Amino acid sequence: MENKLTHFNGQGNAVMADITDKETTERMAIAKGSIKVNDKVLNHIKNGKVEKGDVLSVARIAGIMAVKRTSDLIPLCHPLMITKSTVDFEIDEAGSRIKVCCTAKVTGRTGVEMEALTGTAVALLTIYDMCKAIDKNMEITGVYLAEKTGGKSGRYVRN
Amino acid sequence: MENKLTHFNGQGNAVMADITDKETTERMAIAKGSIKVNDKVLNHIKNGKVEKGDVLSVARIAGIMAVKRTSDLIPLCHPLMITKSTVDFEIDEAGSRIKVCCTAKVTGRTGVEMEALTGTAVALLTIYDMCKAIDKNMEITGVYLAEKTGGKSGRYVRN
Amino acid sequence: MENKLTHFNGQGNAVMADITDKETTERMAIAKGSIKVNDKVLNHIKNGKVEKGDVLSVARIAGIMAVKRTSDLIPLCHPLMITKSTVDFEIDEAGSRIKVCCTAKVTGRTGVEMEALTGTAVALLTIYDMCKAIDKNMEITGVYLAEKTGGKSGRYVRN
Amino acid sequence: MENKLTHFNGQGNAVMADITDKETTERMAIAKGSIKVNDKVLNHIKNGKVEKGDVLSVARIAGIMAVKRTSDLIPLCHPLMITKSTVDFEIDEAGSRIKVCCTAKVTGRTGVEMEALTGTAVALLTIYDMCKAIDKNMEITGVYLAEKTGGKSGRYVRN
Amino acid sequence: MENKLTHFNGQGNAVMADITDKETTERMAIAKGSIKVNDKVLNHIKNGKVEKGDVLSVARIAGIMAVKRTSDLIPLCHPLMITKSTVDFEIDEAGSRIKVCCTAKVTGRTGVEMEALTGTAVALLTIYDMCKAIDKNMEITGVYLAEKTGGKSGRYVRN
Amino acid sequence: MENKLTHFNGQGNAVMADITDKETTERMAIAKGSIKVNDKVLNHIKNGKVEKGDVLSVARIAGIMAVKRTSDLIPLCHPLMITKSTVDFEIDEAGSRIKVCCTAKVTGRTGVEMEALTGTAVALLTIYDMCKAIDKNMEITGVYLAEKTGGKSGRYVRN
Repeated sequence: MENKLTHFNGQGNAVMADITDKETTERMAIAKGSIKVNDKVLNHIKNGKVEKGDVLSVARIAGIMAVKRTSDLIPLCHPLMITKSTVDFEIDEAGSRIKVCCTAKVTGRTGVEMEALTGTAVALLTIYDMCKAIDKNMEITGVYLAEKTGGKSGRYVRN
Repeated sequence: MENKLTHFNGQGNAVMADITDKETTERMAIAKGSIKVNDKVLNHIKNGKVEKGDVLSVARIAGIMAVKRTSDLIPLCHPLMITKSTVDFEIDEAGSRIKVCCTAKVTGRTGVEMEALTGTAVALLTIYDMCKAIDKNMEITGVYLAEKTGGKSGRYVRN
Repeated sequence: MENKLTHFNGQGNAVMADITDKETTERMAIAKGSIKVNDKVLNHIKNGKVEKGDVLSVARIAGIMAVKRTSDLIPLCHPLMITKSTVDFEIDEAGSRIKVCCTAKVTGRTGVEMEALTGTAVALLTIYDMCKAIDKNMEITGVYLAEKTGGKSGRYVRN
Repeated sequence: MENKLTHFNGQGNAVMADITDKETTERMAIAKGSIKVNDKVLNHIKNGKVEKGDVLSVARIAGIMAVKRTSDLIPLCHPLMITKSTVDFEIDEAGSRIKVCCTAKVTGRTGVEMEALTGTAVALLTIYDMCKAIDKNMEITGVYLAEKTGGKSGRYVRN
Repeated sequence: MENKLTHFNGQGNAVMADITDKETTERMAIAKGSIKVNDKVLNHIKNGKVEKGDVLSVARIAGIMAVKRTSDLIPLCHPLMITKSTVDFEIDEAGSRIKVCCTAKVTGRTGVEMEALTGTAVALLTIYDMCKAIDKNMEITGVYLAEKTGGKSGRYVRN
Repeated sequence: MENKLTHFNGQGNAVMADITDKETTERMAIAKGSIKVNDKVLNHIKNGKVEKGDVLSVARIAGIMAVKRTSDLIPLCHPLMITKSTVDFEIDEAGSRIKVCCTAKVTGRTGVEMEALTGTAVALLTIYDMCKAIDKNMEITGVYLAEKTGGKSGRYVRN
């Protein structure tokens, strides 16, 4: 059966699940998330975009580096040789938030959703860090897996 | 003035801000966050709590370890000798979510809100990882700084 | 000849040995080890097992994470994409010790005995850390490779 | 009372214990351990000592680097700014083993026994790694805290 | 006598030198270095500066993060709680090179020259990585300590 | 076209380039570099070579370990399962410098020049660290890619 917890063995103890016999296929994942910010932050980031003091370019690098460090942070994640990663941002002025979209790709035996989610979370935390001097009430929200392809379970798209 | 971005210099370039002259005081921060899960996950975690196969104890360890690795993940964070860290969980059945609360403490020159937030985020990502086989639609949400003490700006409590 | 030191070149200088031409096969290793503890520790761990305050579940996570970090700790170890890892414990009351058994698996060009041994050692060190307040005389002992399969040299079982 | 487990809170959950109020004093620890090896390894290491291909100098560096990474490996260990570390070896021909002695020192709020023990264990694992091609039956044994000074509990010497 | 090698003990074995008794003072270091590049790279970086695709902002983040990881890379370096770090660039068109200047600051028991030098080296390596597709003949050159203050030996300025 | 910057996307934002479809081939790179030192350092290192207190064996280990950590340091580098690495030294008395040569090898989808260059840089930084007590004016210089094979662009030899 597909949907049982693979991170525990028969005795209920945590294990790094055996993926030795899973097929090596091209796998991709896209995760998304946002951070709610005040107008000051929003303005700073907008201006930073076209001019100087670019919060988002620092957050992008932090996100991509975190993608590579996922298996070092999440205890039962398998190490994977990531073959691509991107982090993109959208400034949602109406919603007073910055949206993050992180992708990861691999040719491997297991999926990369944790990598995409970790990259998203760390990019958001980096925005928080860089803007916390001008907004103490920011909130990271709506971090989820948007899409996933490859592997036995096929394509998943969140609706 | 207090509320300018300290992570950029006069030319708008990212810097690790100079905290050499800030006072060494006891500082504490509490961050919170949640993950929305389906009933299957909720049941598994509840049972794991009293019996075996404990998702939350793995997530707790991941969160505490991430607290210690914050300055390695967030590019402009200062390294800090954390003197205490806890990660606690609450199962919110009505709200179909697991709540995380992470604290960090230090005697140092700058605050530990990023440590508490990073511990919260990584604990939530770990729950995600361990339960993703039985719920592909989980969502991490409401990650924020709940409280912060110490340093020049004094006590902050989110309302 | 099989049994020469591969971690040195002709001049006697340390090298990370060339495994480029070794065959990619499924490889597995099992390592074991123990920690001698006093009765107080033994009781605490036994109770923790069925109730709360679980030393062993923390040590298990530490061991699995260390398996993944082996090539970062052991200077001439090759990085490997571990495909499985488990850490199990046995409480040996008669012998006043906790036994650890760590397995690692990979599909790769070199064996995973160092990964299994490192996971064992770090799990034991973690038990030490968590119990040192109630026993200052613990001793880690008998850490060895129990079994190894895959690769040119075939199956090895310690007798 | 001194001797309760500090790595768990009242609910039995793992925590990084609060050391904020502990005194900052000079603290030192010495750990020891051995690896049993066959004659081939013993000869190789003896010759390496005076000539070339020096197993022990690689193991020494690995041990010192591991001392610095202790809080990254042992989940509930506090990060500490180590102020000194040494790793020394003794070739015990009669006992067919290599003995390791690792020291660590800090001016801090908690002891450095885990650092000394981790340095010892990683130095021994490195010897294992470098010699495993000529001896598959090595065994790491007798890893313990030999001495510890500083802090409220004063000087400890293992008898 | 001041100028003996502190990274070896009486037996000539490598040690992490004992700095326990050194004074805790404010210490600062500035390191510099360059990378020789072709005109294509020079143009790309100039344009990136005012517009988009900013090589230097990625290299700056890499340098600052490397400053924090120095004691993890350089075997006998002491860990230090860096209190400030900056990485700046100068485009030297006449000399066909990009110049890097990295500063580090700490209140601690030993100097931060290795941190400043490591930040410089990693910033230069990052420029190399990002531009290697358009110039295979780049060369990193002239990496040195420009200035150093604090500690017993006082101020040093390279002439 | 071959020679465009692969580390930026169409919008000029940094990305970890997609190498999923690149061919898995055997790839090798050799990087070189030097450090200019005074006579005292030169003599120390020469003597260390034949006797004890060996600076170069520490630098060799640091270089090989850095090769494995390249993708963790250089933001947009892909992780790679390195299959071989060596670091060699030459004492150039006439030129008052120590020369470093680092090689890296992989069977993978992208080249290992960054690994060889990072190993070279960290080996040189380690020599600097170990000798800085007896020479404050050392300079790292001439770090470049000497040779590279494998992949679509074929063999490159610097002239």
